[in-house]
Parts: sequence; C-alpha cells; structure tokens
Amino acid sequence: MELKELGEFELTKLIHALVDKFKNPEQPSEQQILVGIGDDAAAWQSNNRIQIATTDTLVQDVHFDLSTSTWQELGWKALAVNLSDIAAMGGVPQYALVSLSLPGEVEVEDISRFTEGMARLASEFEVTIIGGNLTAASIIVITVTLTGCSQGKFLKRSTARSGEYIAVTGYLGTSAAGLRMLQKKLTLNAEANKLLRQAHLQPTPRVKEGQILVQQGVKTAIDISDGLIADLDHVCEASKLNARIKWEQVPVHYIVKANFPDYQELALHGGEDYEILFTANKNTIDKIRQNIDCQVTIIGEITEETLPDRVTVVDNEGNIIPYKGEGWEHFRNGTFKAKFA
Amino acid sequence: MELKELGEFELTKLIHALVDKFKNPEQPSEQQILVGIGDDAAAWQSNNRIQIATTDTLVQDVHFDLSTSTWQELGWKALAVNLSDIAAMGGVPQYALVSLSLPGEVEVEDISRFTEGMARLASEFEVTIIGGNLTAASIIVITVTLTGCSQGKFLKRSTARSGEYIAVTGYLGTSAAGLRMLQKKLTLNAEANKLLRQAHLQPTPRVKEGQILVQQGVKTAIDISDGLIADLDHVCEASKLNARIKWEQVPVHYIVKANFPDYQELALHGGEDYEILFTANKNTIDKIRQNIDCQVTIIGEITEETLPDRVTVVDNEGNIIPYKGEGWEHFRNGTFKAKFA
Repeated sequence: MELKELGEFELTKLIHALVDKFKNPEQPSEQQILVGIGDDAAAWQSNNRIQIATTDTLVQDVHFDLSTSTWQELGWKALAVNLSDIAAMGGVPQYALVSLSLPGEVEVEDISRFTEGMARLASEFEVTIIGGNLTAASIIVITVTLTGCSQGKFLKRSTARSGEYIAVTGYLGTSAAGLRMLQKKLTLNAEANKLLRQAHLQPTPRVKEGQILVQQGVKTAIDISDGLIADLDHVCEASKLNARIKWEQVPVHYIVKANFPDYQELALHGGEDYEILFTANKNTIDKIRQNIDCQVTIIGEITEETLPDRVTVVDNEGNIIPYKGEGWEHFRNGTFKAKFA
Repeated sequence: MELKELGEFELTKLIHALVDKFKNPEQPSEQQILVGIGDDAAAWQSNNRIQIATTDTLVQDVHFDLSTSTWQELGWKALAVNLSDIAAMGGVPQYALVSLSLPGEVEVEDISRFTEGMARLASEFEVTIIGGNLTAASIIVITVTLTGCSQGKFLKRSTARSGEYIAVTGYLGTSAAGLRMLQKKLTLNAEANKLLRQAHLQPTPRVKEGQILVQQGVKTAIDISDGLIADLDHVCEASKLNARIKWEQVPVHYIVKANFPDYQELALHGGEDYEILFTANKNTIDKIRQNIDCQVTIIGEITEETLPDRVTVVDNEGNIIPYKGEGWEHFRNGTFKAKFA
C-alpha cells in the first residue's frame, strides 16, 4: 500500500505503534515523558521543569509557492507554525533550530530576507535561534524545531469533558481566503488585501493567549492548522468524545463573508488560521474574556454522543448541516496543500 | 550571488550575523546560552542542568540513494548522524523529533522498515522518539532533531590550545570507501563488504566515548562528518590556531588500504566516519586509553602557526604533503555528497 492510500493520520498511528514496540520502558527518558507522539508538541519532565518541543516542516509547492509569498514571509511563517504548537500547549517558547534544504541556485540575498523574517518574529516572542543545519537539495524544505518550557500545567488534546463548551480565539477561514486571493490573483480593496495576505503568510501565533488559558485552568486545546472540523476531530478522538458545533456561532470575518460566497467551507475546513480551539466551562470562559486581548467565541460543546462523524455541525434550530469536504491530510490530498484553489 | 558560489560555511556565518543583528540580548533565552550557532550542537543552561540540541537532515540523492541503501539503514543513519553531534559535545542523548517529507507513492511497508531501523538505534542509546511531523513532498527529506543533557562540562570546538595533541577514535576513510564500493558496485570479500557497508550506512556514534572524554577533562572535540581536514579546520578556525598532522599516523583500516589505492584521499577528505577528533595533552590521552573501548590514535598537534591552510599534513621527516581536494561543503560541491564516486 502507498502512503497516499493510507494518509497522514493513519501513518502517524503506525509509526507510533512501531516506536512503542521497540522502546525500552525502563530507560530514564521514557519515564519522564508527559506528552508523547500525537499532540501539538511533546513534553517531558526535566528536574523541576517541564520541557516542550515541536517540529514542523514547510515544503516548496506543498506549503508555499514563491510566486505568491516573499522570502521574508516564508521565514516568518516557518517559525510561526511552530510557535503555534507551543501556544496550543500553553508553553513559553525558548530555542529554535532551523534546518534549510536549498537548491544551489537560490540567491544569497533571498536567504538574508528569509532569516530577517524569522529573526523578527523570534525577537517578538523572545525566542533565540540557537542552531540548525544547511544542506543542498533539489527543492526548498524548511524544518524548524522549537523548544519551550512550562512551569507546571499545560494544554493537551485528550482531556476534554462532556458538557464543556468549545471556544476559539479570533476568526476562522481568513487564512484560506488569503490563499484563494493569492492563487486566483483576486483584486480586493487595500484593507481586505492586507488582512487576508497577513492571515495566510504572516499569522501571529497565540502564544500569550495559550498561557492565559493555562493560568485560568483550561486543560484542553489544539491550534487550528488542518481546519476547524479536522482539528476538533483530533480533540474528540484523543478525548474519546464527540462535539456539536453551531454554525451560526462560528466567527468569520466580515471581509471573508463579503468576498467569498463559500465562506462556510473556508471556515470549517480551511486550516492554517493558527487560532486556538479550547474546551472549558462557562465560568472559566468568562474569566478568560476578562484577561485576553482577542475575541473568544463559544461555537459549540463536547458531547457523549458516539456518531460516525465525531464532529456534528447544526443550525440554530438544531438541524444537522451536512458538510462537504474535509481538512487537510498529507499524502491523501494530492500535491498542494491549497485545496481551496 | 547564488548559494553555490558562497558555499555552506560562509552562508552559516551570514545567517549567524543576521540572527545576532535582530536578537534581544535582554531576553531570558539569550542569557542562558552556553553554545550557539556554529558548533556540533547548541547548549543552554536550564536551571541546574545543561540542555543540548542538534538537528541534521538527509536529502534524497544528496545524502543517500535508495538504490544502494535500505530503508532500515536510512532510519538508522538519520538518527546516528544526530547522535554523533551529541557525542561530539560529550552529552547524554534523550529525545528525538523526526520530520519526514515523503512522496505519496512511497510504500507504507518501507516507512515501517525505516521506523524500525531508527527505533532500534534509539533503544541502543536510550533515546525516546517523542514526536515529529509528516508532510508530502516530491523528494524524501528526513530531519531529526535530538535533545540531550550534560551534568556540567561539555566539549566545544573553540577551546583547543597550542601544543595539545590531536587524537581520533577508530579509523578514518572507511565510510567513504563504503560509499565508493556501493556506487561502483565493487565485489569485495564478505568481511570487507560488511565492514564498509556498515561504516557508510550504519555507523555507530561514539556517544559513550564522548562522555568518557568529558570525564577525563577533555574540552575540545568535533565529530568527523565533513572529512578530517575540513573538521579539524573547523576546530582551528573556532580556536584561532593551526594544526599539523603526521600522515603516517592517521589510522586507516587495512581493508581500506588493501582495496583503495587512493586511501589517503579517503582518510583525509572522506567524511561521514562519525569518529571523534579531540585535543588533549599526552597524560590525558593515556588515561582515556585506559577507560575507552576503542582505538585512540594521536595524529598530530595544535600549533600557533598562522598559515593560509590552517591544517598542514607532513610525512615522518616533517616534509609537507600537499593535499588535493577538500571536505564536503554543501552548495559548492555539486549535487551529490558522494564526491569520491
């Protein structure tokens, strides 16, 4: 069987099972694990401190296209997607290692711009770029590994409880709308152009917001990278529960609504918004709203249902809205992550 | 200017300078740095412990060729090259994050074999594979990031002193001989075939040996990945000194001498042996020899000379042996790392 038949998520499970098969549970590094394969980031106990680490890769013509993004934006985004994983754990990011595979024909000046884009974002979040690796390759592949720490508690995917509300930061579908605008060369007004380009190419990870969630007692979160339905499904699967979303409550920016008639699909499946989805009770969400600098919207709740589709979308009357399409899954979804083109 | 004109080493310096330009020296993560960009691995203080991290990438048709290596060997080597960087710091390896970029046409069974190869080596060195990332791509790119720790001291490139001896573990040129054998489909006897294939495709990193060096008071080391001359040159550059090697003392396995007339070039420039080169006084080297399970050979000494070529090779009479060629440098050396084909 080929990977494109199995898909990314099943392959992750297969690799996880094989790693477990060969592991030695007695070794010290095993005994200190707090979160292993299958969450936004890994976490382990290191003396009196919790260490967090995550890695994410951007591949040319899968995750980005140099005809629609600048090198500076690429440097920013390669770090931002990793910061978002640390944010989804509620951690404090610290050190980045950057592995660049590049064709020999790339201009030195472009790598300077790339480095500047990444270094500016690193500085904004007090991250130190501490090392990396350079190799020749026939295509551009960028892997960033980011470490961080947590003073005690952190956010996981597997701890949602039945009856908790599901909430998200910011707006959904904006990044997918930005990708569509760039690929279709849509001419929108300056405000729309700026919002959508930035949402897709220079997302601001919700690092401080993730830390506030932990402080206010939230236990369960994920960042929205594959799409709302797909990422909420990851939480449901890990927590062995279902979820019910009220479509009318899903926050979509008015610019997206005004310019993209299929904004529902963008919001439910678009992905790459790098907003945080979390679960909590009403009281906790109220406290969070008093402490956080962004919009927080309740979009549904965790249920004890056991439906074939773990995530159900309903209208205001409770009628099920069938959704087409699915979030991004590598290997299964063809060659370019831009499924909304 | 294109990267192939600038080369890997100058590009590293450029990126380092740009990262420094945008950094905020006040941020906590900056103040805890012990070793930053430019050594085998990065190191930072984390409460009462030193954390180490390194990353290394294998690119299809640059670092490996699926017609000469199995997926199991590939999994082993992708982790081994990172273990070697932790070994060159004298650290204890702990957690690995594995980022795989793969074409959708790769067989699932091959990824199982890859994972098994990596997991077996991980188990041997008590490393836990704790997470990673899967993405589609048009070529295979494997990036492993490995963390580790050190209880106090560690090995650097920049601390060599004039008058110290230069020593290496094991034999040099064996891996390059193995690559040549595989590429040219040379028919050698079973013993030679096993030794050379293993040296190139399943090297055993000198993790325990690196720790012994630290315990015995060694301060300066590097692993031999780019080639003896190139890696010793990195030490000389970082330590602002020169080095003089006695060619007759460079350890070359008899099988390599017997089968490859140009074994001098393989030993001086071959690279990928993943042996450790270190500097120390005679007394320390004698103590190391009593505690270590492999051959340790003195091959020269660190000098205060300031020659254009920081590394000089001499014969037993002290006459300079001019060496042709140079170690591997990405972007400059064409498309395949196999420069000895």
